[in-house]
Order: sequence, then C-alpha cells, then structure tokens
Amino acid sequence: MSAAKPIGVFDSGIGGLTVVRALLKELPHENIVYFGDTARVPYGPKSPQVVREYALQDTEVLLQHNPKLIVIACNTVSAVALDVVQKRAKVPVVGVILPGAEAAVKASRKKRVGVIGTLGTVRSNAYTNAIRQLDESVQTFGQACPLFVPLAEEGWTDHKATELIAKEYLFPLTLEKIDTLVLGCTHYPLLKAVIGKIFHDNIVLIDSGEATAVSVKRMLEESGLRNTSTMKPRLQFFVSDVPHKFSEVGERFLGQKLGKVQRVGGFSA
Amino acid sequence: MSAAKPIGVFDSGIGGLTVVRALLKELPHENIVYFGDTARVPYGPKSPQVVREYALQDTEVLLQHNPKLIVIACNTVSAVALDVVQKRAKVPVVGVILPGAEAAVKASRKKRVGVIGTLGTVRSNAYTNAIRQLDESVQTFGQACPLFVPLAEEGWTDHKATELIAKEYLFPLTLEKIDTLVLGCTHYPLLKAVIGKIFHDNIVLIDSGEATAVSVKRMLEESGLRNTSTMKPRLQFFVSDVPHKFSEVGERFLGQKLGKVQRVGGFSA
Repeated sequence: MSAAKPIGVFDSGIGGLTVVRALLKELPHENIVYFGDTARVPYGPKSPQVVREYALQDTEVLLQHNPKLIVIACNTVSAVALDVVQKRAKVPVVGVILPGAEAAVKASRKKRVGVIGTLGTVRSNAYTNAIRQLDESVQTFGQACPLFVPLAEEGWTDHKATELIAKEYLFPLTLEKIDTLVLGCTHYPLLKAVIGKIFHDNIVLIDSGEATAVSVKRMLEESGLRNTSTMKPRLQFFVSDVPHKFSEVGERFLGQKLGKVQRVGGFSA
Repeated sequence: MSAAKPIGVFDSGIGGLTVVRALLKELPHENIVYFGDTARVPYGPKSPQVVREYALQDTEVLLQHNPKLIVIACNTVSAVALDVVQKRAKVPVVGVILPGAEAAVKASRKKRVGVIGTLGTVRSNAYTNAIRQLDESVQTFGQACPLFVPLAEEGWTDHKATELIAKEYLFPLTLEKIDTLVLGCTHYPLLKAVIGKIFHDNIVLIDSGEATAVSVKRMLEESGLRNTSTMKPRLQFFVSDVPHKFSEVGERFLGQKLGKVQRVGGFSA
C-alpha cells in the first residue's frame, strides 16, 4: 500500500508549484501533498540559520501526511538545509540542487555553467560544490537575481522592465561564454523566454524542477514505490497564509487550477 | 523620568528605518528602540489575519523595553492592525496612516489625492477612509505598487527599469489629475525622485513617515513626555533575523550607520 502514499513537497511559498507541475508531467498518477510557507515567504534573502529552522517546521507539516518521499521544491532550502531535513524525515528526501547540477554537467559541452538564484542560494555555493563533485573540470559562474522572484509573482514575464533587469543581472554571465545556465530558483522557469533572449537563445536552460521530477521518478521506480494506479491522483495544497492574489499567482505557477487550498495554523502564533 | 523612556518603533523589516530617520530629524534627543521582523518580512502581500498576529508579537518585543510611546512604522500594519496594537499596549500608539492622511488633506488644493502602497495597504482602504473622515469632499485614487519594495531594497532607485515600472503603475493616477500623492509605504521615500518625475514634479509627495514624526513631536510636547535632555540619544536596533546585505540596505534607509544590531529569538521557533 505504500506506493499509494503521497509525495510530500514543500517550498517557502508558491514557487514550488512549478516543481509540482513537473512532477505531474513525469508522474501523472502520484498523489501529492504540497505545503507552502506563505506566511513567511520569501526565504531567499534570509539567513541560513532562519531558513534551517523554517525548513524543519515545514517538514513537520508534511510528515503529518505520511509521505513516501519528500521533495524540497525550494532552491534556498535545498542549498542550506537539505541535511537537517534528511536527518529529521524517516523517508527519502530529494532537493532540487543535485538533480539540477547533474543535468547541467550533462548539458555543458564547453564546461562553463552559469547559476542564477536568490542571494541565499548563490552565496551558499551549493550548485558550484555539487557540480564540482560531479566533474571538477566544469567552471561555474554565479549571479543572484533578487528581483526575478517579485517580477515572476507580479506576472511581468515579458515586460520591457523585466528585460532591462535581466540584461543587467545576466550581462556578466554573457561575458563568461557559458553554454548552460541553471535556473536555480523555482520562480525562474516563468522567465525562461526573457532569460533565453539575453543569450540570443544560444544556451541550454536547466530547469531544476524538471530535473528533480525525472530523478524522483527514477527513485520511485528503483525502490518499487511508484504508484501503479491509473486513477486520477489526489492533490492537496496547504499553506501557512492565504495571501492576496494567491489563487491567481498559484495557477500561473502550477499551470492549472489549484482547487481547494487549506490553511495550516501555528505559523504565525 | 518617563521622558527618558524610549520611543518604541516597529516594522515588518527595515522600511521603518525611514520613519526613524524622520524621528531623529524632528526629535534628535529621543531614545529609540526599533524592532524589525526581518524573519517574516514582507507583510505587504500577506493576509490581514496574519499581519494582525505578527503585529501583536512585534508589540510584545517593544513592550519589554518599556517605551513611552509606540510608533507603527509600517503602513500595512497601521492599515489593518492599529486597533489590536492599541488595545494591547498601555501607552499611546501612533500609526503612519492618520498623520499621512492629515498631511495629504492639508496639501491638496484640487482635493484629488493618490495613494500608493502595498497590496495590503491599498486593499484595506485605510488612507481613503482616514482622508474621507477628515474631509469628505476629497477624492482618493489608490494604486498598489508591489515591485517598489524589492526595487528600493535592491537600491535601484534611479534605474531605467525602475522608471518603466513606475510609469506603468502610476500612469492611471496621472489621468486622474491628482495634485497630491501619499507615499503609503515606508520604502517609497527612497523612490521619491523617480515617482516625482512621472508627474513632471508637479505634485506634492506626502512622506507619511515625516508626517508621523511631526505628529509624535506634538504628542510628546502636549503630554510633557518630550525628552529635554540634550545628551546624545540611545538608539537600539533589534531584528528577528540578520539577513544577507542587512547593514548595507539598512544604512541606505536610515541615512546613517546603524551600529550594533541585535537578533531577537523566538520568531522562527
């Protein structure tokens, strides 16, 4: 029966819904429980210490739903708190960093990889370390892009201002002759078009969420935990706050309607 | 001795430092205790329910320092939680909305006032209600500008992208022939130049923080609580997290170095 257990997914907010979207594509029959800590979002600018504490609390929410596997659908958390979550959970825990790093190493012919993300993710050097462990001849170039999250949440994905901001952030990376760029934040897939344009679409964009979904599929298959049911799966969404514009923004990230969203108490008390 | 007690100031993060800056200008000899809830910033997009809970917790932090008066240096909190904070504290509590509204009514000759702020502030209609209570013949026009906060924190105060974004947000207000605009978010004074430009500098910009400082000065004088000491005042800064780039961003908001910043625990547990 354990194959019918849900995959647990958590994120600082709604960005992780792009990872759920990728999971639904790779694994259309898996039940999923999602928790977004919308009462304390964003984690990106916050200190590693606070992010680790929040990550443990998010994990507790998911553990109440008895998941067979947990996906940390947040780059900042994966970068600074994977170890503490793995230690706490009694089930496999998958972050987005390692799958993203593997996909980048595989894709880069020139062995020159750019990594963009929040300040927390870029400062942690988590992608650089993961990539170097896989292939120490690969050179990496990091760039924090703090305005990309609010731009994606505002839905300004093809605005002239977004293009100017992307140009400013990414210009240093164009000079480094990278051929592969890791979208190291779950919000960034919404900005793929404008990011690609800065590199004249002459670059491989790595969506860590998609790479993670592929990795989760393989893990479930190898461990015999893949849900073989062909029933419509059960998707449950929990948040710590239901902020203004939540359903509108959430739909854009998930690529479909969210249905019922339940608020979990205790995150503001 | 109670005149020597500090003024307590709290905000969701560092935006409230622009209000401290205004207080220091109006009342250079007052001791000040500041608390910024940087572990959970921003409050602007969050629900009124969560903002009220957070505001009460922020108030508890200040009450431990025995303030003679509390300033809510956050428009979102002032808009949705002034009543609960006033009920909890045993000292006078001043929000930024009423002083800002008074200054706007006084300034507007055409009786057409624009109000910009976070989604939470604009949706609350707090400025509109306050302005109408002062003068019901004044028409107000609200506009949420969610990207202004991250732009101010990034320090992109005169970037071309900021200008484009300001133009998009403020264009509807230019059509309304307003002659006065309330900067209904403590981050916005940093964007005064770019905002003024959209209106060809032919508009009065109301800085609610400055209006609040004037109001606090009057209150302290009337109640005999003004600090008559001419000693250098004691400024204390507390935060719930010390995020990346904190001191750099904080200095820009305060207009001077912050000195020692202490972290208050319990906000992530």
